[in-house]
Amino acid sequence: MSSSDIFIGETIGTAVLTLLGCGVVAGVVLKQSKAFEAGWVAITLGWGFAVLTGAYISAPLSGAHLNPAVTLGLAIKGGVEWSKVPVYFLGQMLGAVIGASLVWLAYLGHFHAHLKDREIVGGPGAQDTVVADRQQAGDAGPVLGVFSTGPEIRNVGQNLATEIIATTVLVLAILTQGLNGDGKGLGVIGAMITAFVVVGIGLSLGGPTGYAINPARDLGPRIAHALLPLPNKGGSDWGYAWIPVVGPLIGGAIAGGIYEIAFA
Amino acid sequence: MSSSDIFIGETIGTAVLTLLGCGVVAGVVLKQSKAFEAGWVAITLGWGFAVLTGAYISAPLSGAHLNPAVTLGLAIKGGVEWSKVPVYFLGQMLGAVIGASLVWLAYLGHFHAHLKDREIVGGPGAQDTVVADRQQAGDAGPVLGVFSTGPEIRNVGQNLATEIIATTVLVLAILTQGLNGDGKGLGVIGAMITAFVVVGIGLSLGGPTGYAINPARDLGPRIAHALLPLPNKGGSDWGYAWIPVVGPLIGGAIAGGIYEIAFA
Amino acid sequence: MSSSDIFIGETIGTAVLTLLGCGVVAGVVLKQSKAFEAGWVAITLGWGFAVLTGAYISAPLSGAHLNPAVTLGLAIKGGVEWSKVPVYFLGQMLGAVIGASLVWLAYLGHFHAHLKDREIVGGPGAQDTVVADRQQAGDAGPVLGVFSTGPEIRNVGQNLATEIIATTVLVLAILTQGLNGDGKGLGVIGAMITAFVVVGIGLSLGGPTGYAINPARDLGPRIAHALLPLPNKGGSDWGYAWIPVVGPLIGGAIAGGIYEIAFA
Amino acid sequence: MSSSDIFIGETIGTAVLTLLGCGVVAGVVLKQSKAFEAGWVAITLGWGFAVLTGAYISAPLSGAHLNPAVTLGLAIKGGVEWSKVPVYFLGQMLGAVIGASLVWLAYLGHFHAHLKDREIVGGPGAQDTVVADRQQAGDAGPVLGVFSTGPEIRNVGQNLATEIIATTVLVLAILTQGLNGDGKGLGVIGAMITAFVVVGIGLSLGGPTGYAINPARDLGPRIAHALLPLPNKGGSDWGYAWIPVVGPLIGGAIAGGIYEIAFA
Repeated sequence: MSSSDIFIGETIGTAVLTLLGCGVVAGVVLKQSKAFEAGWVAITLGWGFAVLTGAYISAPLSGAHLNPAVTLGLAIKGGVEWSKVPVYFLGQMLGAVIGASLVWLAYLGHFHAHLKDREIVGGPGAQDTVVADRQQAGDAGPVLGVFSTGPEIRNVGQNLATEIIATTVLVLAILTQGLNGDGKGLGVIGAMITAFVVVGIGLSLGGPTGYAINPARDLGPRIAHALLPLPNKGGSDWGYAWIPVVGPLIGGAIAGGIYEIAFA
Repeated sequence: MSSSDIFIGETIGTAVLTLLGCGVVAGVVLKQSKAFEAGWVAITLGWGFAVLTGAYISAPLSGAHLNPAVTLGLAIKGGVEWSKVPVYFLGQMLGAVIGASLVWLAYLGHFHAHLKDREIVGGPGAQDTVVADRQQAGDAGPVLGVFSTGPEIRNVGQNLATEIIATTVLVLAILTQGLNGDGKGLGVIGAMITAFVVVGIGLSLGGPTGYAINPARDLGPRIAHALLPLPNKGGSDWGYAWIPVVGPLIGGAIAGGIYEIAFA
Repeated sequence: MSSSDIFIGETIGTAVLTLLGCGVVAGVVLKQSKAFEAGWVAITLGWGFAVLTGAYISAPLSGAHLNPAVTLGLAIKGGVEWSKVPVYFLGQMLGAVIGASLVWLAYLGHFHAHLKDREIVGGPGAQDTVVADRQQAGDAGPVLGVFSTGPEIRNVGQNLATEIIATTVLVLAILTQGLNGDGKGLGVIGAMITAFVVVGIGLSLGGPTGYAINPARDLGPRIAHALLPLPNKGGSDWGYAWIPVVGPLIGGAIAGGIYEIAFA
Repeated sequence: MSSSDIFIGETIGTAVLTLLGCGVVAGVVLKQSKAFEAGWVAITLGWGFAVLTGAYISAPLSGAHLNPAVTLGLAIKGGVEWSKVPVYFLGQMLGAVIGASLVWLAYLGHFHAHLKDREIVGGPGAQDTVVADRQQAGDAGPVLGVFSTGPEIRNVGQNLATEIIATTVLVLAILTQGLNGDGKGLGVIGAMITAFVVVGIGLSLGGPTGYAINPARDLGPRIAHALLPLPNKGGSDWGYAWIPVVGPLIGGAIAGGIYEIAFA
């Protein structure tokens, strides 16, 4: 694969992944959406099929990593050259910012209606309270939650542990694909398996932190949240931002290590 | 593929797609249905498996486009001759009208019970109010909603943008199938992948407009709604009708363009 | 395939289909079940995976029809000898009675607790009312509903039409499998496709009558309901029993006809 | 397959299965989890994709039994040497304890918050009541329920029957895989089929006992529950512990017998 194919494939694939992934959260949490309050099954299925769609589209160009933790695990395994790793990372980050911006565009009226509703409900003076509330580090609030993850119980060690465990499972399932006769890269069936693995991780390990399990999926949309114009959007919770980057990278490295020891 | 096979395949396939797709909305919104208020996950799974069933049945005859936006994207890619495009369009439109009429037949008692219930609940004089309410352009109401899509927040630019973005993702996923070793047309695995992509798009981008993402799926049932006898059915919201036709066609063309630039 | 393999395969496969299918209804409607009130998505997924499991297990022996309407459609298509049809029918009916009896065994304590609870809730004298209510032809009640289908709105023409339409879609999807490269019979992928088609039909067309779409699946458990000992179980609604037999057989024949005209 | 590959594969695979499986219960029942009260569909999908992920990862090493009842059924069929059976059992038990411990780690803050909340809600003196309640043999309570199964209606014969029936279906579906062209072991498609079979069994037969259908999945986490430090965790309900071990083993043996008689 050429570097330009990798860059284009990862950009398009991660954009689609982030568009559909952040999109399902927008659909479920923003008022006046037909998917409003559709529940956790909707969110986890939405993220799983976001991965499926992004992976399926980008597989022929870049092998569909779409996730720096996956790229890191594959590099440790020897499935991708270390010199290509920065190309993957750049495409993934750019794609994630584009995808989150498309969610902003697709749901723009709903973002405005949602933020306006919250002000009205609270009566005079409530706007400040709502904004202040969402700016608290401990409460990402529904609007930031469309873009990036946040923990239910804020605790550095606990949140890191959850992200590490969940990402180790994800990357291990991707690294063993070559052993299951799927050929190189993700392939058709591989994309479907990965989608259901992601649904499973979301259902099972998403409860505490919202399962970033992908540094680009969390950091890219957080940058978009900080840059895009939205009234009363609150802060972007930068204090938490390193955990869904570092945790998944550690998880990807652990999965690479387990693979080398047990499967290679 | 002969023109007659294409026409018959698209007619049957789109009829099945529309029957099951509009059927799940009928099941969820009409009173006295066992699926009443089954939620957004039910609706999106129902539409996804509607696509699966229609595509699987029609793939051997016509390659299972079932959607003018897909046909347009494939024509731009060179995967279908431009001279065959009108044959696809005609079959898709005819099939969509037939499918919506079969929903009317399968749920006829429920349509009557639903409309009657609404009158009773409101007491004397309420019938006019209910009818007037459903005839408003901004409120498609549950009965028209069984047939065609309508936006939660009516805004031409916003609604077009959402339909364009969602359809671009759908058609891009279909155009790249040939690169993933599925052979020509949809095929078995391709039909399953497409089904899950459609579930994903519904969950993630269906919130604002109800994700037509298919001109035939929206316009055909709207014609059926206008023609079929139903008491107090209200208007067919023709003012909105062009958006779920034009938006998806633009999305299909954009996907064809992206494919030509990045994948060809 | 020998007649004994066909008979054994259809008996085992239909028993598994009916055990898991009627089982999910028991889980959702009987009190003190962990699946109590899990909703229509649970029921339709349960029936879909019931078909998957039964089909997958019996495919190597009998080709996994598990449904007289499927056997009829395949016989019209020429995919099964007419002389074998009675063997398929017998195995399917026997399997359906066995499967329903296993549901009775697996949920026996819950049937008793459920029926007892209903008596207690109503206070003195309520038992007779409850029993009488469930014996009414028009109200199958939750206990009969575990075994067999019943309409929400009782109307012979309407109920027949819904079952015919839904079964035509099912059988057409099965008849076209040979054209999609799945080889003979259902096969692995075919079983999965069929499962999702069944989930889709349940979501989309199950609302009015509970989608029997299979004479054996409805009549076999109804016989089991009539024979098995359950306190206050009420009547078996024999007045409705012919509709989920005749409707699906007509649908299977229509699908066979469509196949011969359009696909053969 | 070497004994060391079998042991490592079963340990890793069963750890992943138990981590994701017990994880989804933690996510749904523990307060302050994003998946709180996500319902029975979430739990059954979570367990199904837990099996998918564990099976997919371990298939190349050990063939992915991950369940003593599956190993027993395969040994009866002749698909695994009897001398290897203890190696499978040891890996499965060790993996299950590891997996349950990882759930404890990933949800540690939530376990503490959940148990603390219950004390607060009850007011002074309530702690003893809550603890006593959960120590009752008949009420496993949400915290033990994260680790191991418990019946809704406690009755030895009834509970055994349900576990035997459910496990027979599971193991029979796995034993017939070799006949459906999936090649040796589970394979890619086999893992997906098995996942949906497990979702189906959970939806349909999980209501009465919580469907252990796997001695290691129940006993390993029960040992972890007894050993791991958790405040007010209550008893481990050892009186029930033999049923989800013996029932599934009987079911696995019955499936092996049915296979030998009907399919071999």
